[in-house]
Amino acid sequence: MNLKRTHTCGELSSKHLNQSVILNGWVDDWRDLGGVLFIGLRDRYGVTQIVFEPESKGDLYQNAKKLRSEFVIAVKGLVRRRPSDAINPEMKTGDIEIVCSELELLNISKPLPFELKDYAEKSEELRLKYRYLDLRRGILQNNLIMRHKLAQLTREYFSDLNFVEIETPVLTKSTPEGARDFLVPSRMYPGKFYAMPQSPQTYKQILMISGFDRYFQIVKCYRDEDLRKDRQPEFTQVDIEMSFVDEEDVFQVMEKYMARLFENLLNIVINTPIPRMSYDQAMENYGSDKPDLRYDLKIQNLTEIFKDSAFNIFSKISQENGFIGALVLPEARDYSRKQIDLLNEYIKSLGGAGIATFIKNDQKFDGGISKFFNEDEKSRLLSQFKSSKQAMIFVIADSSIEKAQILLGYLRQKLAEDLDLIDKNVNVLSWTVDFPLLEFDPEEQRFIARHHPFTSPKLTDLDLLQNKPELARARAYDLIWNGNEIAGGSIRIHQREVQERMFQALNISSAEAREKFGFLLDALEYGAPPHGGIAFGFDRMAMLFAKADSIRDVIAFPKTSSALALMENAPTPVSEKQLRELGLKIKDHSK
Amino acid sequence: MNLKRTHTCGELSSKHLNQSVILNGWVDDWRDLGGVLFIGLRDRYGVTQIVFEPESKGDLYQNAKKLRSEFVIAVKGLVRRRPSDAINPEMKTGDIEIVCSELELLNISKPLPFELKDYAEKSEELRLKYRYLDLRRGILQNNLIMRHKLAQLTREYFSDLNFVEIETPVLTKSTPEGARDFLVPSRMYPGKFYAMPQSPQTYKQILMISGFDRYFQIVKCYRDEDLRKDRQPEFTQVDIEMSFVDEEDVFQVMEKYMARLFENLLNIVINTPIPRMSYDQAMENYGSDKPDLRYDLKIQNLTEIFKDSAFNIFSKISQENGFIGALVLPEARDYSRKQIDLLNEYIKSLGGAGIATFIKNDQKFDGGISKFFNEDEKSRLLSQFKSSKQAMIFVIADSSIEKAQILLGYLRQKLAEDLDLIDKNVNVLSWTVDFPLLEFDPEEQRFIARHHPFTSPKLTDLDLLQNKPELARARAYDLIWNGNEIAGGSIRIHQREVQERMFQALNISSAEAREKFGFLLDALEYGAPPHGGIAFGFDRMAMLFAKADSIRDVIAFPKTSSALALMENAPTPVSEKQLRELGLKIKDHSK
Repeated sequence: MNLKRTHTCGELSSKHLNQSVILNGWVDDWRDLGGVLFIGLRDRYGVTQIVFEPESKGDLYQNAKKLRSEFVIAVKGLVRRRPSDAINPEMKTGDIEIVCSELELLNISKPLPFELKDYAEKSEELRLKYRYLDLRRGILQNNLIMRHKLAQLTREYFSDLNFVEIETPVLTKSTPEGARDFLVPSRMYPGKFYAMPQSPQTYKQILMISGFDRYFQIVKCYRDEDLRKDRQPEFTQVDIEMSFVDEEDVFQVMEKYMARLFENLLNIVINTPIPRMSYDQAMENYGSDKPDLRYDLKIQNLTEIFKDSAFNIFSKISQENGFIGALVLPEARDYSRKQIDLLNEYIKSLGGAGIATFIKNDQKFDGGISKFFNEDEKSRLLSQFKSSKQAMIFVIADSSIEKAQILLGYLRQKLAEDLDLIDKNVNVLSWTVDFPLLEFDPEEQRFIARHHPFTSPKLTDLDLLQNKPELARARAYDLIWNGNEIAGGSIRIHQREVQERMFQALNISSAEAREKFGFLLDALEYGAPPHGGIAFGFDRMAMLFAKADSIRDVIAFPKTSSALALMENAPTPVSEKQLRELGLKIKDHSK
Repeated sequence: MNLKRTHTCGELSSKHLNQSVILNGWVDDWRDLGGVLFIGLRDRYGVTQIVFEPESKGDLYQNAKKLRSEFVIAVKGLVRRRPSDAINPEMKTGDIEIVCSELELLNISKPLPFELKDYAEKSEELRLKYRYLDLRRGILQNNLIMRHKLAQLTREYFSDLNFVEIETPVLTKSTPEGARDFLVPSRMYPGKFYAMPQSPQTYKQILMISGFDRYFQIVKCYRDEDLRKDRQPEFTQVDIEMSFVDEEDVFQVMEKYMARLFENLLNIVINTPIPRMSYDQAMENYGSDKPDLRYDLKIQNLTEIFKDSAFNIFSKISQENGFIGALVLPEARDYSRKQIDLLNEYIKSLGGAGIATFIKNDQKFDGGISKFFNEDEKSRLLSQFKSSKQAMIFVIADSSIEKAQILLGYLRQKLAEDLDLIDKNVNVLSWTVDFPLLEFDPEEQRFIARHHPFTSPKLTDLDLLQNKPELARARAYDLIWNGNEIAGGSIRIHQREVQERMFQALNISSAEAREKFGFLLDALEYGAPPHGGIAFGFDRMAMLFAKADSIRDVIAFPKTSSALALMENAPTPVSEKQLRELGLKIKDHSK
């Protein structure tokens, strides 16, 4: 190329009048207005208007007339002020234009399958197949630039605090007790496999045992799950671990990190310390361990009130230590039968029995299940709901407390969205703490770790491990932003003896523990310091900071929800030679 | 833990006298001197001396006596000045010590399998198996901290220049025309595979076509090769691409990058511009495309002189357009027969025919092949070697010019090491440019791309592609540091028509090109800008900046040279269930 740019397409203004400049970029649009040709020249930094006049020297004007959308060109010319009626205050460069004196065609383009500005409306399949065109849209470019800034800020913040970024291996061994691993066949050891990490959990603990003191990494992790919306087989996390700490130390570092991000990326000052809520509180009040606190709407516990209800389902659930909870919504006062039916369907689709409703009308109850209420119940309900004069009341009951609360949590979120209760300009952060350490797995008929088996129990709950494991609490914490879990972590077990007691509670034998977690157990015996950490979901954070709708809009080359790479066309069959080298055969499904 | 540190073990000095402090760390060493116990307490930041006095309160002294190497403890105490005869100027904290008043045992340690300081002398196998202990050594910690700084400086430098770091996929499609890929079987599409990238080459070109203008990424890449010393199956590179550039633009950005690194990491000012040497010059003078220029020793071309030599091998090689080259070493004047035999063996082990030698003794030639010289040859040799009065002359000849030069290059490096010609305090950077575009592959009986098929030919050599492809030069460049290739890149082809001509020269049909490189070819048709880039070998750079002996010493968890992870024990067999889910069978080798 002969004409190398002196400026980008986003920086010229009336400060540059009468300067001779060169710009390089793409033809964004072109208009032939009464013989004068106007071209919008685009690059990552902006668009600048180029003018080709019929009286220009030589073939210039004729050549310019051959330009089409997305042709790549270099132009040389003088910066001049636009006529006052052509000034465009919407454009950074809207005061000026370039009168072209020299044009170099750098590349042509076929007509695009779709106009760039229409891409968003096309199917996501099409956008992913032609990702190189989709990524020309300013909105996606800005998303990825935001993601870059988020990564840079993260690295600066942790580096300034003496954290060391250390790369951990991708070709490794199965992560214990997790989801399904992606496997990589070994050619040098046919029949053996590496596993791709679901997280660098064991490595970061090893680094603490090695004395690295403070570690972080922005790192790809891999999980071979049946994909759901907003999950990717490869995803990125900010992985962090610290030595000689307890929960408070982790919270302090992470709260300042969040404050830095909000200030730098959104120009928002957040309040610290970030409030903490126990898992039990979150479940009781919001039916979720990641409650969206942008709106208040709390679950009201009616279990006790309906102990002797004439509505048999309720009395039975109440007496059997189930849960009956209500959401009270003045805004839903005029919901139609049809609207309620839709909500009922929604709760059933989530595995619930359905929703009961009734209306509070001043001192009276109407409709739905109100006909079952006796005077005592009515008076207790009036007292319970005294703050709402008129309201629609939604009730969900289940013999499992947790299930009833979770369904109420989903209903709460659905109603808030439907009724527009959420102020989108508000950001609420909270910590959820005091998680249960274990949960019972009915399939395996044993307790399994809610997080992972290296999460430390609360020291006061150590004795519960043997007797009442379901009551033991973990030193685990999640960070919640507007109902999204953006990070989760824990203080880890650093003493072999505690680790043994944990394995006993999990019904894992010494031999099994050794086979699964051998090197970490060995390492615990050579002077492991107290340590803990956290991991942030980087894709989700980028999505939230960029205010994007999907994590696929903050990933340059995402997979579809069925794990396909549509642009590159992957996965694909491989050659017989490749399989032979790996000592593998494809199973014949006809047999 | 009750006693949380107020300081690290590396920061206290006489500025802190009489302050009450808390330190956390590992027992590095302990000495019982006449009843007073001295412990060196270690963390990542340093070592501080802790004193336990027999007259301390309660059980403190008795408890301290039970401490052993690598126990993890917290100590509280007063900072005091050491007695003048105990001041240790070698230690950052050598002026002071802490008189302990409170001790908390955080963890015990079994006796280590080996003393930390002896680890380096143990087998690398042992070091890798107990990597968590090996990584406690200061030298390895400093290597990884240096690597971290190198990454941070890199990101800062490129971010400041508007480069955007963009993550590219790991689960992708085979890289065209490269080494062997690691494959990842797909569970959702049994019988199909993802490939792990050998480099993000196609993605970074796609990003340029998308208009990202300036991209970089510090990224893991994967290559399933038979490993050699200093190669890892997963390795890290700094991957860079720029739009609207030619070679000069790339050089300028990279030279300032190197200057920044040298200044910040080694406190060395390097001269820019970095000198450039053509591939032909490098091969003719140094027998290598990555010459070590810390010493001058150039190859002398004797091909013409020996055209009619009585030494038949030489005259034949000279007449058949082979190459006869010499290295002239005054320092090797007194080499014994045995020393020469060893060098001869070395060259034979590399596939050469051997080395011929003779001695220059003032105006005379002695020994070796000198008996074959006629008067004319002698006089021409005297004139050729006039700058050395007395010297040993090593000659290598081969009918392949390239092979002779490469062997001379190896011999040159070997002699320089043996004779200590290399000043280890000097750093010489150079660009190698003007590489051949293609090389003939005797196995496939066609030309293949020396770099990759997207490397642009020199525009002046375009017509050679059809007629004399072996003469076409590439717009490719390598950056060399003291004989190490630390980066390589090129200006890419951005026009479909040039790409077609390249495929013709490579004898790749349209159908094959479409199958292998489909999406990139499509993208080239929608307005691809001129672009080029480079990739730095990050592991090797870290090794050189850390002055480490092996890349394994700058990687936290490296594989062995046979691709084993000794600590974690990978690869491993997997379960029948996992294989079944992937639709795979292990081949029975008995059949």
